[in-house]
Amino acid sequence: MDARMMKLPLTIASIIRHAERWHGATEVVSRHVEGDIHRETYADVASRARRLARALGRLGVQPGDRVGTIAWNGHRHLEIYYATSCSLAICHTLNPRLFPEQIAWIAQDAADRVVFFDLTFLKLVESLAPKLPAVLHWVAMTDRAHMPQSSLPLLCFEELVAAEEDRYEWPDCDEDRASSLCYTSGTTGNPKGALYSHRSTVLHAMAECFPDVFGLSATETVLPVVPMFHVNAWGIPYAAPMAGTKLVFPGAGLDGASLCELFEGEKVTMSAGVPTVWQGLLQYLETSGKRVEHLKRLVIGGSAAPPAMIRDFREKHGIEVLHAWGMTEMSPLGTLNQFKVKHADWTEAARDALREKQGRPHFGVDLEIVGGDGRPLPHDGTAFGDLVVRGHWIIDRYYRDAGGDVLRDGWFPTGDVATIDADGYMKITDRSKDVIKSGGEWISSIDIENLAMAHPAIAEAAVIGVPHPKWAERPILVAVKKAGAEVTKEAMLDFLRPRIAKFWVPDDVVFVESLPHTATGKLSKLELRKQFANYKPAS
Amino acid sequence: MDARMMKLPLTIASIIRHAERWHGATEVVSRHVEGDIHRETYADVASRARRLARALGRLGVQPGDRVGTIAWNGHRHLEIYYATSCSLAICHTLNPRLFPEQIAWIAQDAADRVVFFDLTFLKLVESLAPKLPAVLHWVAMTDRAHMPQSSLPLLCFEELVAAEEDRYEWPDCDEDRASSLCYTSGTTGNPKGALYSHRSTVLHAMAECFPDVFGLSATETVLPVVPMFHVNAWGIPYAAPMAGTKLVFPGAGLDGASLCELFEGEKVTMSAGVPTVWQGLLQYLETSGKRVEHLKRLVIGGSAAPPAMIRDFREKHGIEVLHAWGMTEMSPLGTLNQFKVKHADWTEAARDALREKQGRPHFGVDLEIVGGDGRPLPHDGTAFGDLVVRGHWIIDRYYRDAGGDVLRDGWFPTGDVATIDADGYMKITDRSKDVIKSGGEWISSIDIENLAMAHPAIAEAAVIGVPHPKWAERPILVAVKKAGAEVTKEAMLDFLRPRIAKFWVPDDVVFVESLPHTATGKLSKLELRKQFANYKPAS
Repeated sequence: MDARMMKLPLTIASIIRHAERWHGATEVVSRHVEGDIHRETYADVASRARRLARALGRLGVQPGDRVGTIAWNGHRHLEIYYATSCSLAICHTLNPRLFPEQIAWIAQDAADRVVFFDLTFLKLVESLAPKLPAVLHWVAMTDRAHMPQSSLPLLCFEELVAAEEDRYEWPDCDEDRASSLCYTSGTTGNPKGALYSHRSTVLHAMAECFPDVFGLSATETVLPVVPMFHVNAWGIPYAAPMAGTKLVFPGAGLDGASLCELFEGEKVTMSAGVPTVWQGLLQYLETSGKRVEHLKRLVIGGSAAPPAMIRDFREKHGIEVLHAWGMTEMSPLGTLNQFKVKHADWTEAARDALREKQGRPHFGVDLEIVGGDGRPLPHDGTAFGDLVVRGHWIIDRYYRDAGGDVLRDGWFPTGDVATIDADGYMKITDRSKDVIKSGGEWISSIDIENLAMAHPAIAEAAVIGVPHPKWAERPILVAVKKAGAEVTKEAMLDFLRPRIAKFWVPDDVVFVESLPHTATGKLSKLELRKQFANYKPAS
Repeated sequence: MDARMMKLPLTIASIIRHAERWHGATEVVSRHVEGDIHRETYADVASRARRLARALGRLGVQPGDRVGTIAWNGHRHLEIYYATSCSLAICHTLNPRLFPEQIAWIAQDAADRVVFFDLTFLKLVESLAPKLPAVLHWVAMTDRAHMPQSSLPLLCFEELVAAEEDRYEWPDCDEDRASSLCYTSGTTGNPKGALYSHRSTVLHAMAECFPDVFGLSATETVLPVVPMFHVNAWGIPYAAPMAGTKLVFPGAGLDGASLCELFEGEKVTMSAGVPTVWQGLLQYLETSGKRVEHLKRLVIGGSAAPPAMIRDFREKHGIEVLHAWGMTEMSPLGTLNQFKVKHADWTEAARDALREKQGRPHFGVDLEIVGGDGRPLPHDGTAFGDLVVRGHWIIDRYYRDAGGDVLRDGWFPTGDVATIDADGYMKITDRSKDVIKSGGEWISSIDIENLAMAHPAIAEAAVIGVPHPKWAERPILVAVKKAGAEVTKEAMLDFLRPRIAKFWVPDDVVFVESLPHTATGKLSKLELRKQFANYKPAS
């Protein structure tokens, strides 16, 4: 029997319509790459998005067309998000931190028709343009006064908006329609696109508002440090207008001083980003003696937050760091580390240990860890297996079917290896391809790396598996010493031995000048394994 | 272009599955009508719901069948919620506070196949049974030891559950499928049913978790005072397991002492209910000198919360009262009164005035006020018009099409008259049928009543319109004096005059011994208008 409820689609247009009607006067503050601080409201965003949508139509953008962006976090980027998706085009955010050849490959694969870019990326755009004949228009996200000289026939964002009247009704839209596209920068093979829907985006944003996730409300002010070119700034550009949260965009100013100025000046209560940015902020606060008085919560994801950072923010600055985990294929939110009622009675040391885990899933996402046979492993905090996920905002295929059928029994394999404890808290122990299988047992490379990096002489460490005639694989530790520091192989092994199981102790320690990294700054174990392809054990 | 996201339905089964997997050890505490305090976990609820679903199948309940409940808030009622909806039957909550003839009419209209009831309602059930031959089974929600003597062949809830193994997979379910049914107890005509869907229930629960709505999380403990027989306890039985919130059910103990004991004993942080219950709690706290230390937030809806109550809870007990508004046809949440960033700078007096409004809508609901011509009125806090709503959890028809096409241009007319201010805060000024239209202008009966009730001699007041040859209608005030108090008509009018527009001043004041009320305790202006059908003005 069908119910008797209104059937309204879950669309991105309904988010900006809500913000305009019920939070129209709430501010969206942006640091422009031109230098000034720009203020507008959600009513302005909605109006400018409508006018931009008319301009896109005039430029020949059709429903389903991809529109690229190469831009920092700012109100114009936000307006493009809504102008594209709400007019049934697809917002395709390009990551300027990738190698230019990768960006060109991605823009070509997506067949972007129009590309918007911030002025900082002019040189990049000029180098890309010859490789991208399908791009009809390049639009500089600035006003006439700041339009640069260029070899390209650039369009001016503010002129496009100013030329249009604010008369546009967002078209009806099926909620399963594609709304936006983001490519993963995998370490192997070509990048693959995650093609989100209106429905998945809205449900993801709703869950993000939960108190146990980002806890967005109309009394909060959020500054997303995580870039809008990286998995839609973790969904904040959708969740904030949904909740009527004041938005502050940092533009290109991600250094400690610039962030601190906005945090204080705009009374920011909540932020989100990767560990490196927060390390910079911590250092700036320490050296400058400045305080951030309003900031209460920081969500940290992208890679594991060092325990010392979590503690320093809390103890020195009264800021709660919330560990999060997700991936591009998950829109991206999978888990967030927030306490349960029972943890109020725990000791601070036990709470600290819990904070280091990646957290528990919220409604809308389900997780499981499975063994080699695909069967679920116990949630005991010890057993570790391949982490698989399912939920409303998780892909079931890549864009253009890249990689074919990627699901395993209806679950998406994350490529991570993890434990889940009895309270549902998940901890990443390794990447599936990095886990070391020694004599039928699994060894977590990340656990050993974290321990090694706790040694005062070690700057960076990597653990990889090397072939072994008896055990199939054995771990070796490859480490970079801190400038001026000294430590021997034996001292390093002595340091590790009391802290890990005997069979986890690396067979060798190799000191190197530097470790290989990917374009986005992640340790490249693929490259490292290549370097050690012909490694022979000392014994 | 269709996106590439997993397509999973929004179902009630997905809520309890989430609670079992990720909050399995979180408690659900219930005060049984038998007297004891019962403790179980979400894992228990899920398991018992599965076993109960098997029992329902054995009793002949088919997908789409209605299963009635006449019960207080408790774990068994929660288990029925999930056992019915998740097995594709429809959970039909019957309101025991209605007149027995109304209950019988509703159960017949819904064609309930099985009815579950709490022991307190045995006499009621025995009187209903002869009128409801279609009910196959009456199930007493208790164990064998507490089974009562009865003229009916009763089944025992705990025996049904104990007889089944925990082997049951919730069937696949389209998200638009009907999940539950609740009748409105309108003041005119027969009751009409609101038939909710899995999708509407899930989306309503998600929005309810927002910090600006109920703010449910795994560190909160919620005690719903609002009954599960009244619009699903405002959705808390769905939102709490979704967020992993500890649930405390008060059973039949809604007096101040019983509530206070549970609030303190279970460290309840949040509750929700109608003003009369909270008045009782306030009085109990005052006379007993007891404190409720953990309670932080009370959501008050159903009727307007008196300003003094809002203030007393905050100032004397540190409890923030959140004014809410909704209706059965809206699942029920429409608005909730929470501040925005800007209100932090307001004076406490201005914040108090704002708190008296019913609040602003959250994502998923849209409101509008329209004039007689159906056109939107300004959101200026002054203009008042018919309040219409639309959204994901609002009906578009009644069950069995009662009343036919009830929407107006796609909006549901609430029957309320309201203002909306520039910040989006809505205030109910009247019921549409009670608003007085005098010389083309509207007069709010509620505003005058509230003023009249602020007079120290007045216990209760009602304002109704009576026919007038020149102005079409004019207001008269009908009032009940407090025991032993005295006030004259002229003194009453003198009291009102400086506080309202001249044309709002009632033409007459009539003192009566009592005012008529409906079965659910609301003032019945319909009845009052009948009493005054032959009223002739004094002048």
